[in-house]
Amino acid sequence: MNKKMVVFTLGKLLKVEAVLLLLPCIVGLIYREKAALSYAVVAAFVFIIGTLISWKKPKNRNIYAKEGFFIVGVSWTLLSLFGGLPFMIAGEIPSLTDAFFETVSGFTTTGSSILTTLSNISHASLFWRSFTHWVGGMGILVFTVAFIPIASGRTMHILKAEMPGPIIGKLVSKVSVTARILYVIYTVLTLIQIVLLVLGGMPVFDSFLNSFATAGTGGFSMSDAGIAGYNSAYIDGVITTFMILFGINFNLIYFFLIGKIAPVLKSEELRGYLGIIAASAILITINISSQFPSYLKAFRYAVFQVASIITTTGFTTTNYDKWPMFSQVILLLLMFVGACAGSTGGGIKVSRIQMLVKHALQELKKVVHSRSVTSMEYEGETIAPKTIGNIHAYLVLYLLVFVVSLLILSLENINFQTTFSAVATCINNVGPGFKAVGPTGNFGFLSNLSKWTLSFAMLAGRLEMFPILLLFSKSFWKS
Amino acid sequence: MNKKMVVFTLGKLLKVEAVLLLLPCIVGLIYREKAALSYAVVAAFVFIIGTLISWKKPKNRNIYAKEGFFIVGVSWTLLSLFGGLPFMIAGEIPSLTDAFFETVSGFTTTGSSILTTLSNISHASLFWRSFTHWVGGMGILVFTVAFIPIASGRTMHILKAEMPGPIIGKLVSKVSVTARILYVIYTVLTLIQIVLLVLGGMPVFDSFLNSFATAGTGGFSMSDAGIAGYNSAYIDGVITTFMILFGINFNLIYFFLIGKIAPVLKSEELRGYLGIIAASAILITINISSQFPSYLKAFRYAVFQVASIITTTGFTTTNYDKWPMFSQVILLLLMFVGACAGSTGGGIKVSRIQMLVKHALQELKKVVHSRSVTSMEYEGETIAPKTIGNIHAYLVLYLLVFVVSLLILSLENINFQTTFSAVATCINNVGPGFKAVGPTGNFGFLSNLSKWTLSFAMLAGRLEMFPILLLFSKSFWKS
Repeated sequence: MNKKMVVFTLGKLLKVEAVLLLLPCIVGLIYREKAALSYAVVAAFVFIIGTLISWKKPKNRNIYAKEGFFIVGVSWTLLSLFGGLPFMIAGEIPSLTDAFFETVSGFTTTGSSILTTLSNISHASLFWRSFTHWVGGMGILVFTVAFIPIASGRTMHILKAEMPGPIIGKLVSKVSVTARILYVIYTVLTLIQIVLLVLGGMPVFDSFLNSFATAGTGGFSMSDAGIAGYNSAYIDGVITTFMILFGINFNLIYFFLIGKIAPVLKSEELRGYLGIIAASAILITINISSQFPSYLKAFRYAVFQVASIITTTGFTTTNYDKWPMFSQVILLLLMFVGACAGSTGGGIKVSRIQMLVKHALQELKKVVHSRSVTSMEYEGETIAPKTIGNIHAYLVLYLLVFVVSLLILSLENINFQTTFSAVATCINNVGPGFKAVGPTGNFGFLSNLSKWTLSFAMLAGRLEMFPILLLFSKSFWKS
Repeated sequence: MNKKMVVFTLGKLLKVEAVLLLLPCIVGLIYREKAALSYAVVAAFVFIIGTLISWKKPKNRNIYAKEGFFIVGVSWTLLSLFGGLPFMIAGEIPSLTDAFFETVSGFTTTGSSILTTLSNISHASLFWRSFTHWVGGMGILVFTVAFIPIASGRTMHILKAEMPGPIIGKLVSKVSVTARILYVIYTVLTLIQIVLLVLGGMPVFDSFLNSFATAGTGGFSMSDAGIAGYNSAYIDGVITTFMILFGINFNLIYFFLIGKIAPVLKSEELRGYLGIIAASAILITINISSQFPSYLKAFRYAVFQVASIITTTGFTTTNYDKWPMFSQVILLLLMFVGACAGSTGGGIKVSRIQMLVKHALQELKKVVHSRSVTSMEYEGETIAPKTIGNIHAYLVLYLLVFVVSLLILSLENINFQTTFSAVATCINNVGPGFKAVGPTGNFGFLSNLSKWTLSFAMLAGRLEMFPILLLFSKSFWKS
């Protein structure tokens, strides 16, 4: 492994985080909060470390798959550790475990919180929490690659390890340009949402933070009432629309913007994604209708919750813990489905599930037609057996992380639905679960062991298993 | 498809069932019960139908994979339907849904019951319930193939569809001889268990029935108190030992009996299976020790329950619903693990899980060593990519059946642990679940829709997805 290049890249990433930490510092200054100081201190500290370890430019600036996965796995852990320091220094989240959990939850766009109330959290910290969603959504390495020239040539390997989905498509031949296009679309869409929310009467500060959380499919709130607090069908509608939008593959959004409509209309994943949303929203609307004055009102809450959960955002406008078990199970299953590949959403991803099912049905048919074709098509392209093998490996590793986390969480000795949904919501980067970790609960009461386990599950989920699990492989550390 | 041969084989199978139905009839006569008559009537009825449709011997007596899967899928459904008739005629289980559920639960060696009490069930019916476990454990087609010459040559295809596990090994070159060897081992082991139980003071009738349920890894009881009612450490010990024994691949038992010890000692699956049992029993013992007077007593109940659940037998000697959540989650996970391939146990099977994990770790390593070997070894043999693809397809189909069943069961609107464990225990052919379907509960209160769904899940689980799911495939029915 090219260790020098790994350390060099980590240094660059820390410097980027230092610059990002200045934003909550500025917010703190605007609101004249003491917390501004902690952000300034940590920014300086992180910048110095970053500068020191990236002082010497390595001669060999090649990054291969191994280095790519290593950088991604280590950097997400490091950035979360450093990113949690301001919470500790400001005294808002004194425990290291809690600060790490909250920051991992931010960067991985999960949105699960250990805070029991947000009423005494500074604007600076509220901003930072939501901003980590925005940065983590598209990826900090994608950001870095887009704007800072680091490696020679093969930066694709970094993107591959950080970007969600089984197959990564380049929009243009140059990786850095692809990354830049993605971030421009991301920023513009976020800005449009901010404007629409402000027009709907949402305070400007809230509009920024809620849009960060929507764009990154994160779900942190800046008030205890959350989105329900605005009590506005317009705001619910805007957020529902943008949640669904940010759950779509950004490549498709790019194609749409440059006028290539055909691939958008033909996309199997997009159809599946929208189909699941429509079917789930209708089924839940019927199932919960007796709890609401009209079908229309039931639909408003149903579609918001469905969009929030499948995109793994995790906003809540109602306590779905009181919905019938059928609606609860639909939501729970949507957590696992997740959004589209190449979006900011988490979960297993619609395309993976479609390919898994397609492969399974093909194997089933082989029994009847023993000499049938063995190649598989998806989105109009032949899928290599290598890709399918990789998706299967992902599924099994995902299940393993799930099972181990479930076993550890069960040591809390609380009811099964809380235990199961805590793991489901964290590994899929959703945010809320059910019962004690449901819409009216939080993760603060859990033991430190559970919090570290869930932090691990969040990272493993966001980075889709490989980069995080490889950190535990001996051969990965050997030169 | 060779339709004539399919109908011919189904006829032969019905005739076999008719003969088997005479056994509970005899039991009823011994105990001078009216129920004997219903078994006689159904036996005659089934024999006539069987004779009529197998009257003409087809000229083309070839059975290929397609016919094999079809025969297995249809016959298990038909035999369960006919096998439930005596319960209805005797008035002991008046509803068709309930009678079908109970018989499917018997043949698939699940052991989930809709009966709230066994105190007013005739000896004939108690015998039949437990005897379906014994027949279903090794498989009625395996039985038929062993003793009746049906097809020319390729009966392997029938065994393949009915016998559990990813790979089927022939003991000797001739399939019918292999099947006969398996049934002889099965019968002798069952007889030994009967003798040991009688020696321990268990009534002869109970000894037979409990041994049938152990051998088939079924779990039906013949009294409301179940195994706990004997309150004997010796009986618990014998049953624990035989449950573990019947969860082992019968090929290994055969090798052991003919003096080939090496493959037994080297078996990865056997080591994994025994390792999981040991680890689970120890962890649960520690976890539940405060509920028992001594560690030894805690261990007795822990190891019994672990053996009962991993082999998917489903006997209970204590209400594990009151154990801490950690022990409950271990038991729940063991339901999914299941026993060894080629045993009478259900679940995913230890060997499948080992191969899935091995493949996933190999894919993980490929990131680091991109030019590493791609072939996979298991039990000392290279596993073909075709086999691995088949196991992956099985996993995905299994998850699909699980998810659809979970959604339908959630319409019951009862707590999540009951809903989840009802599906888990049925698809894995275990028997009891948790809470309302736990050790002190039963499946009688569920809606008809839930009962048909769970019956389907039991059949899909026992026949390992393919034969049952293919019945829903259009191309399967087309000639």
